[in-house]
Amino acid sequence: MRNFKLVLSYDGSDFQGWQTQPGYRTVQETLESALAKLTGETKVRVNASGRTDAGVHALGQVANFHSTLTIPDARLLGAINAHLPDDLVALSVEEAPPSFHANRDALRKRYRYVIHDGLVHSPFMRRYACHSRLPLDAAAMARAAAPLRGTHDFHSFETDWPNRASSVRTITYLAVNRAGAYLWIDVEADGFLYNMVRAIAGTLMNVGRGFWPESKVAEILSATDRTEAGPTAPAQGLFLVRVTYA
Amino acid sequence: MRNFKLVLSYDGSDFQGWQTQPGYRTVQETLESALAKLTGETKVRVNASGRTDAGVHALGQVANFHSTLTIPDARLLGAINAHLPDDLVALSVEEAPPSFHANRDALRKRYRYVIHDGLVHSPFMRRYACHSRLPLDAAAMARAAAPLRGTHDFHSFETDWPNRASSVRTITYLAVNRAGAYLWIDVEADGFLYNMVRAIAGTLMNVGRGFWPESKVAEILSATDRTEAGPTAPAQGLFLVRVTYA
Repeated sequence: MRNFKLVLSYDGSDFQGWQTQPGYRTVQETLESALAKLTGETKVRVNASGRTDAGVHALGQVANFHSTLTIPDARLLGAINAHLPDDLVALSVEEAPPSFHANRDALRKRYRYVIHDGLVHSPFMRRYACHSRLPLDAAAMARAAAPLRGTHDFHSFETDWPNRASSVRTITYLAVNRAGAYLWIDVEADGFLYNMVRAIAGTLMNVGRGFWPESKVAEILSATDRTEAGPTAPAQGLFLVRVTYA
Repeated sequence: MRNFKLVLSYDGSDFQGWQTQPGYRTVQETLESALAKLTGETKVRVNASGRTDAGVHALGQVANFHSTLTIPDARLLGAINAHLPDDLVALSVEEAPPSFHANRDALRKRYRYVIHDGLVHSPFMRRYACHSRLPLDAAAMARAAAPLRGTHDFHSFETDWPNRASSVRTITYLAVNRAGAYLWIDVEADGFLYNMVRAIAGTLMNVGRGFWPESKVAEILSATDRTEAGPTAPAQGLFLVRVTYA
């Protein structure tokens, strides 16, 4: 069996997230069906770097699958895309070492959370950005976010998930930028807790609107209590940007 | 009755075009229903600068309507948007002179046609750009487009429309630009024939792919024969950008 590494981009709007759930359209199930058709194999099992939730998008999700397929490399990407719907595309495919595992081997992941704070939400961005009617102070959000960088227990930014061994993660990059009426929060870490980026986004938006002082973010982090942080921001603003391997 | 001028933006993907057609979701019908609810009037009739076809988008469509409504100006935009779905928004509303008519008074309209010539179409742009698997030479398209500027009989770029008095129009601006894997063709004119921008786009794409020499565009224009020009490019790449009044 050969092991293939895929880089995927998908518009999460019409998927019930990554993971297969009977009766729902999911990225995993759509991809596995396409690969089964392509390879003629009964069942192709795909591992992703991590699950994305319903409505969450990917610019560079990474997955791997094992197959005996013999399509020449130059034609493989086109052949895979020919079997995929237009809201899920493979950006690249390459043969990986036999041991490569998209989830286990991921060193870091980067997410982007996009917010529009114009008066009226754009009909073209309604699926791809969270809308804030109140203007946001991006500079205040950037300053407030600083204490989150580094290694911390992020329990305050975690939606409970059964049997999670530890809530300690390391944020290696965190930035808030603005261009026109759009802001984006970029977060890279060695791993993410459930809804962690969306909880950080909801918290920073409360600072950006002036509801909370900048200093509150450090207090929330220390509290290790989810009820202290802001709301989980909506899924449509979230993009998995890229996954880094050794 | 007061006369109101609206600037509208809509994602045309889920509309069967501007004009009301029984049994279909159209921009006009959606807008007129919203305004009827808002004003409490039985029927509000909206005039647009022109119809857009199914799947065509608007960044700045202009429309006007007459109403007795008395909502204070400062709250009117929010009140209108509160009655509209998220794929149709009013960007501005203002009282216009009683004689203002969005179609009759339009001096010029500008359209943009967007094309993606990357190897794999982006799942996020599938509704907002035409995809060309073959790379396009934007500079050749720009040179080829030059003879279209000015006043000409554009019958070669017109899908037949009954009782059209004349196919003579004046193109006041025409440019082809590229950024990364995206190209856009901007066309401004004193009026447009049916499918004119999409026929120009389909023709220039044939030049951009190297199927036709640059000189062929002038020949097509002279022929005043629709069968000489390229295909009508798909609706999803087309945006009505703005309408200019005196």
